[in-house]
Amino acid sequence: MYRIAVDAMGGDYAPKEQIQGAMLAIKNIPDIEIILYGDKEKIKEYLTNDERIKIVHAPFVIPMGEHDPIHAIKANKETSSMARALASLRSDEADAVVSSGATQALIAGAHILVRRMKGFKRTAIAPVIPSVSGKPTILLDAGGNLTIRPEYMLQQAYFAKIYAQEVLHIEDPVVGLINIGTEEGKGREFDNEVYQLFKETDLFKFYGNIEPKVCLDPPCDIMISDGFTANIVMKTIEGTAKGMGKILKANLTSSFIGKIGALLAKKNLDKFKTAMSAEEIGGAVIFGLYKPVIKAQGASKVYGFYNGIRQAANICRAGVWDKVSDYLESQKGDEDE
Amino acid sequence: MYRIAVDAMGGDYAPKEQIQGAMLAIKNIPDIEIILYGDKEKIKEYLTNDERIKIVHAPFVIPMGEHDPIHAIKANKETSSMARALASLRSDEADAVVSSGATQALIAGAHILVRRMKGFKRTAIAPVIPSVSGKPTILLDAGGNLTIRPEYMLQQAYFAKIYAQEVLHIEDPVVGLINIGTEEGKGREFDNEVYQLFKETDLFKFYGNIEPKVCLDPPCDIMISDGFTANIVMKTIEGTAKGMGKILKANLTSSFIGKIGALLAKKNLDKFKTAMSAEEIGGAVIFGLYKPVIKAQGASKVYGFYNGIRQAANICRAGVWDKVSDYLESQKGDEDE
Repeated sequence: MYRIAVDAMGGDYAPKEQIQGAMLAIKNIPDIEIILYGDKEKIKEYLTNDERIKIVHAPFVIPMGEHDPIHAIKANKETSSMARALASLRSDEADAVVSSGATQALIAGAHILVRRMKGFKRTAIAPVIPSVSGKPTILLDAGGNLTIRPEYMLQQAYFAKIYAQEVLHIEDPVVGLINIGTEEGKGREFDNEVYQLFKETDLFKFYGNIEPKVCLDPPCDIMISDGFTANIVMKTIEGTAKGMGKILKANLTSSFIGKIGALLAKKNLDKFKTAMSAEEIGGAVIFGLYKPVIKAQGASKVYGFYNGIRQAANICRAGVWDKVSDYLESQKGDEDE
Repeated sequence: MYRIAVDAMGGDYAPKEQIQGAMLAIKNIPDIEIILYGDKEKIKEYLTNDERIKIVHAPFVIPMGEHDPIHAIKANKETSSMARALASLRSDEADAVVSSGATQALIAGAHILVRRMKGFKRTAIAPVIPSVSGKPTILLDAGGNLTIRPEYMLQQAYFAKIYAQEVLHIEDPVVGLINIGTEEGKGREFDNEVYQLFKETDLFKFYGNIEPKVCLDPPCDIMISDGFTANIVMKTIEGTAKGMGKILKANLTSSFIGKIGALLAKKNLDKFKTAMSAEEIGGAVIFGLYKPVIKAQGASKVYGFYNGIRQAANICRAGVWDKVSDYLESQKGDEDE
């Protein structure tokens, strides 16, 4: 049985959709049990079946856009549903956390309450972004380490490879380095160091440099850069999708034909825009923590949240964390700082 | 009279459209004369009116995608239409260059044959990108200086401000620093140094940090970062626009309604996609050279190329270069390295 800790209070439609998502997960996934962290009374309103579901009372919700998430987590360690769910990983009461609560608070909380896995130097936030072909692409590090040593990026890329292989079922996942040109030697000194390291490694297949003009149709499964650059890429994708949506809307007031086209295409683009929103990085996993933390979309409804739980169960079942741990163990002489 | 040097041979539809564009410019802009650099025989085929137009024979064309643009420029200094046009700036035979030839060759050639203006430390490539509101936004440095000192970025931002004010007629242009968060203190150490410098300057109005999720709808007129980051932003915008175009196309095979919507909206998105293409950064100006060099779109037709010439004339007439020179002169004690 995998024990999934669910932050029942975080998210636009919490706790209703989270609780219904949890019940759906229990129904469809036989090898999990769920611990719901939240307001006991409110949870009971929606929980119509408590099979394999426990409740832990933790009613406080850290608001979206909280300016000081670190303080918010620390000050509400005992009462925040998110903080309690996260703490359950370190105390080994649960195997994974799923939350659709405030992203910044979740990241801060994860670092304070879950902490890194032994030997893993820098965690990475890894959203899965849509692509033209329909094949998912992992983008990392979408935030966190603005500067990083190439060796630490090697660890992150390896983690992403194991994840892509075991959870996304991509055979022999390929890693691409985000850069301003495709040829070897392009980019900053840092990018070149990473390139050389990746070129020589046996840990994963390295495609080489990829320019972000292929960001939605990449020749690789994993796109990696430092936490500054990858965050810029993620937010530029979001901004362009948003902007193009608005331009389409503006067409509503232009020609008749444009009007109809815009109206009809809008729905598809809106869907895409939501999928790409930085606040909404749905199903983003934080790599390198002691145990898996999954950020479900803030706007998650039943099915979306259920998917987050399913993802958590898949990660546990596939033994992603163990596989990475085994590798780190094998890297003797490395000292955790 | 402003003397515009035109590379008649560079571009997908050269020399026909370039020559027709030049004749259109002569007709509409009374205070310019044009020097056409190219294959004399071919030019004569299309040149039906040589009023205020001179021809300099330079038939060689540096191909798009040339792998070693520096070598290509150096090896064909006497015969390349692009190289000869660029060299005319340094020899004071012309006041500005317009070319729709290979971007990398043009940049390399500009650095070799035109060189920087006195006191300006790092040139910047500054495409004007479309926005939701229709107001143009200057993005820089879209390529060139992967790492740069904050003081040099101050010069670049000031150049962009003068350009926005004098050529784009934006009153009191506002500069935004591309960053991963909006609050002061966000980003790398470098971004913070730039922030502090921009915050204290009287040279332009500083908005503060802007996240690229507003890249097509920014609260500023100029978006600036180092040459690596701004290039990543430009290419991610291009990639997202391309990808969304493909996703729309994919809808053609989905539902009937989606099909119609996609068909009708496609034309508008295609237009946008072209406008955003990195190879096609239309009317991108290189800031900080001895004299202005304008990169017109490779796919320029008559009107597009005419616009490039008009832009060159506007830059000359507005005295952008002189204004920046005056400022640099006033910064005594600065030594050109």
